[in-house]
Amino acid sequence: MSLKGRSIVSLEGLSSAEIERILQVAAQMKNIVISQNKKLDVLRGKSIATLFFEASTRTRSSFELAAKYLGADVVNISKSGSSMTKGESVRDTALTLSAMGVDALVIRDSSEGAAVFVSRAGSPRVAIPPVINAGDGAHAHPSQGLLDMFTVREAGISLKGMKYVILGDILHSRVARSDIIGFAKMGADVHLYGPRTLVPKELEALGCTVDDSMEEALDGADAINVLRIQLERAAGGFIPSLSEYSSLFGLNRRRLALAKPGAIVMHPGPMNRGVEISEDLAYDERSWIQEEVRNGVAIRMAMLYLILTEGKDIEVHN
Amino acid sequence: MSLKGRSIVSLEGLSSAEIERILQVAAQMKNIVISQNKKLDVLRGKSIATLFFEASTRTRSSFELAAKYLGADVVNISKSGSSMTKGESVRDTALTLSAMGVDALVIRDSSEGAAVFVSRAGSPRVAIPPVINAGDGAHAHPSQGLLDMFTVREAGISLKGMKYVILGDILHSRVARSDIIGFAKMGADVHLYGPRTLVPKELEALGCTVDDSMEEALDGADAINVLRIQLERAAGGFIPSLSEYSSLFGLNRRRLALAKPGAIVMHPGPMNRGVEISEDLAYDERSWIQEEVRNGVAIRMAMLYLILTEGKDIEVHN
Amino acid sequence: MSLKGRSIVSLEGLSSAEIERILQVAAQMKNIVISQNKKLDVLRGKSIATLFFEASTRTRSSFELAAKYLGADVVNISKSGSSMTKGESVRDTALTLSAMGVDALVIRDSSEGAAVFVSRAGSPRVAIPPVINAGDGAHAHPSQGLLDMFTVREAGISLKGMKYVILGDILHSRVARSDIIGFAKMGADVHLYGPRTLVPKELEALGCTVDDSMEEALDGADAINVLRIQLERAAGGFIPSLSEYSSLFGLNRRRLALAKPGAIVMHPGPMNRGVEISEDLAYDERSWIQEEVRNGVAIRMAMLYLILTEGKDIEVHN
Repeated sequence: MSLKGRSIVSLEGLSSAEIERILQVAAQMKNIVISQNKKLDVLRGKSIATLFFEASTRTRSSFELAAKYLGADVVNISKSGSSMTKGESVRDTALTLSAMGVDALVIRDSSEGAAVFVSRAGSPRVAIPPVINAGDGAHAHPSQGLLDMFTVREAGISLKGMKYVILGDILHSRVARSDIIGFAKMGADVHLYGPRTLVPKELEALGCTVDDSMEEALDGADAINVLRIQLERAAGGFIPSLSEYSSLFGLNRRRLALAKPGAIVMHPGPMNRGVEISEDLAYDERSWIQEEVRNGVAIRMAMLYLILTEGKDIEVHN
Repeated sequence: MSLKGRSIVSLEGLSSAEIERILQVAAQMKNIVISQNKKLDVLRGKSIATLFFEASTRTRSSFELAAKYLGADVVNISKSGSSMTKGESVRDTALTLSAMGVDALVIRDSSEGAAVFVSRAGSPRVAIPPVINAGDGAHAHPSQGLLDMFTVREAGISLKGMKYVILGDILHSRVARSDIIGFAKMGADVHLYGPRTLVPKELEALGCTVDDSMEEALDGADAINVLRIQLERAAGGFIPSLSEYSSLFGLNRRRLALAKPGAIVMHPGPMNRGVEISEDLAYDERSWIQEEVRNGVAIRMAMLYLILTEGKDIEVHN
Repeated sequence: MSLKGRSIVSLEGLSSAEIERILQVAAQMKNIVISQNKKLDVLRGKSIATLFFEASTRTRSSFELAAKYLGADVVNISKSGSSMTKGESVRDTALTLSAMGVDALVIRDSSEGAAVFVSRAGSPRVAIPPVINAGDGAHAHPSQGLLDMFTVREAGISLKGMKYVILGDILHSRVARSDIIGFAKMGADVHLYGPRTLVPKELEALGCTVDDSMEEALDGADAINVLRIQLERAAGGFIPSLSEYSSLFGLNRRRLALAKPGAIVMHPGPMNRGVEISEDLAYDERSWIQEEVRNGVAIRMAMLYLILTEGKDIEVHN
């Protein structure tokens, strides 16, 4: 099974075997991330462009480091354009970089569908290389879904049959969408809870359960992913205040006790500590939040490696 | 013939033999751009700074990739300063980077003469390394002129005796200026056409013909370079509307039929499709626009290689 | 004596033996900066993040080139945030990059104490790697202090017993503070002079002399470091005008004659020529200002090398 030459724009497009392979290679890559010598030559001679049309230090750095650890060169493009001309500029920029010989494009954009649009934007003279979607509006963020699966499994939890709970603003979250698709595909039982306006029952069509209470959601949970409350996206008056959000929907030590003993806490970052997650839980030993960041680099190394090579196993001697 | 240690600020400063040598080395470099292994070691240990005081994703990325494909390190500096202090800051930034050991400076600035000014700005203690002008106001953009010559020749057209036509806003275009100088120097017959306010007869002093009608300009043309209409630079009321510009001065399939059969279409990008060039021509098989982008990397590799080394031939085995 | 794993946030934290070792390794590094082959492999496999929360082309480029000359990879993060959320974001960004496997953090921030704060911001799961303070508010800028000592010594002046004079706005200057601490620690006699509101007597607590006149300060000086007058930081009405500042406190050829014959002139840059330093002195043969820039790269190479390795001597064959 090879992913060479493939674009990864969402987890819908990957089979469970392909997801399994990415997780497997990421485990090899993680040995590099935590080693003293973070430089392979396996992507030497490859060039990767990151195109971030929406600000993100965190994800951009993660992809940039992943590429460099593997020996690839990186060019970073960030651009803010008027919303009118923006769609066009994403395509033109992608075509231009492709013509320049770039081997993979990592794209973030505020519009849903930007990555898949770009991946099909080749012209008679210029083929678009493999595209990785690093977040397109509220649609998908596949590398985040993959790193969450990787983290859960690293915590000793089997994806198949586990109860995976996502709390918060699901409706506007590409992380949630990729998590739901990915975990469900791997056999997890995915539950959602949050303010009803942000977690409508219709989301069950994605293959998950929308719960009616925090208690119901957390009962027997193996892992709880707490989403950032994105105040800038919240419309209308459904969130009276941050403290009310915290008291109604925030995760804290008392509520965590409702989950399975040993359940882990996750968060895609950046956290609003004291709002969706209590201050003490953020750095608790049951929190795997920092480990998700580390695993993000390993996952992105695996993705880049697999779409750009035959994908042979890598042995690292530390 | 060696270009080692030379600054390239305009095509006036290069002999036809030197242009020939750059085009020749660029042909070797192109094999690298289109190969699976874009990493030579020929500039390993060299550092190149790009100083872009005017925004340009396209040209900056092209130089950055060119340098990295050859194994050089790159630092990118972009700065927007007040117009008062700007001239000074270009010089000081260049001196500072030179003192830090940078081996070549690639400079873009909105002021005519910025690159040549910098190339002479050395102090008793700090020599300025070779400077490449990546565009200075409306003056010159030598790498674009060189890549246009390279592209024409790659299309099987001999520069000597060919008819090269430039359409559009010539007056404000550094691309046009470098094209006119370069193609004329290599023996081409250069013709210009566009709105009279933007293509005054005085331009003939550069060694070209300003035509009076589209028909006259296109008749017998081997290659047509369509310039972007830069609305932000157009002064006064000479362009009633975009659609009028398109109908009077735009290139489309019907007009292209006036040129020599097999004539190629070029554009320095980014295009306003439907304005100076019709939508269908932009991606037509006679359009070499994307190839210009690819060739731009090869030309910039050749320029950097030649100013930084003895310039021995490079053999690439794909 | 090893600095491996150490953060360098101020010169208070280094012993004179440690300063001596940095200066010694920087002398080896300088051979690389001025060589034709600026690429060692000694930091290959290491990744360095520059986090600049305050604009600085000059210092950021210097660290970036230093890291690349040694073979390390670099990711650059620059961010402007609201002052409210800023402290937090520095910490979170540092933690995130640390989790991603970055081996050293170079930090500039407008708040005093930012670097030391970050160096202690590790969480149970993520250790913060060595931090280099690249300037925190008006507090410290240790690499600048070190490069000034290096430059003085390179000019043939022994640090022990020399008279080192700093002119200008000492109060708001992290350069001055690091210079005072460092030169005093190495046995120099440090003198300050400038507008009294900017050079209060209280500064003598740092181990230096605040003089009452330019004559007193310059008499017998071996080296004079002229600080940039930072108009944006000057409060109130104590500086009537730039020309008055120049006539009262600026260094010029006439005043330089008061110093020891052969005294050298320094400036951390960027200069306001004609204000704190006269136009003719800026590029005079007694000015070591450009050399300071060059030495800055060597010092930063030494710092990165020593905190990331066992610090063995490096031999360079030019």
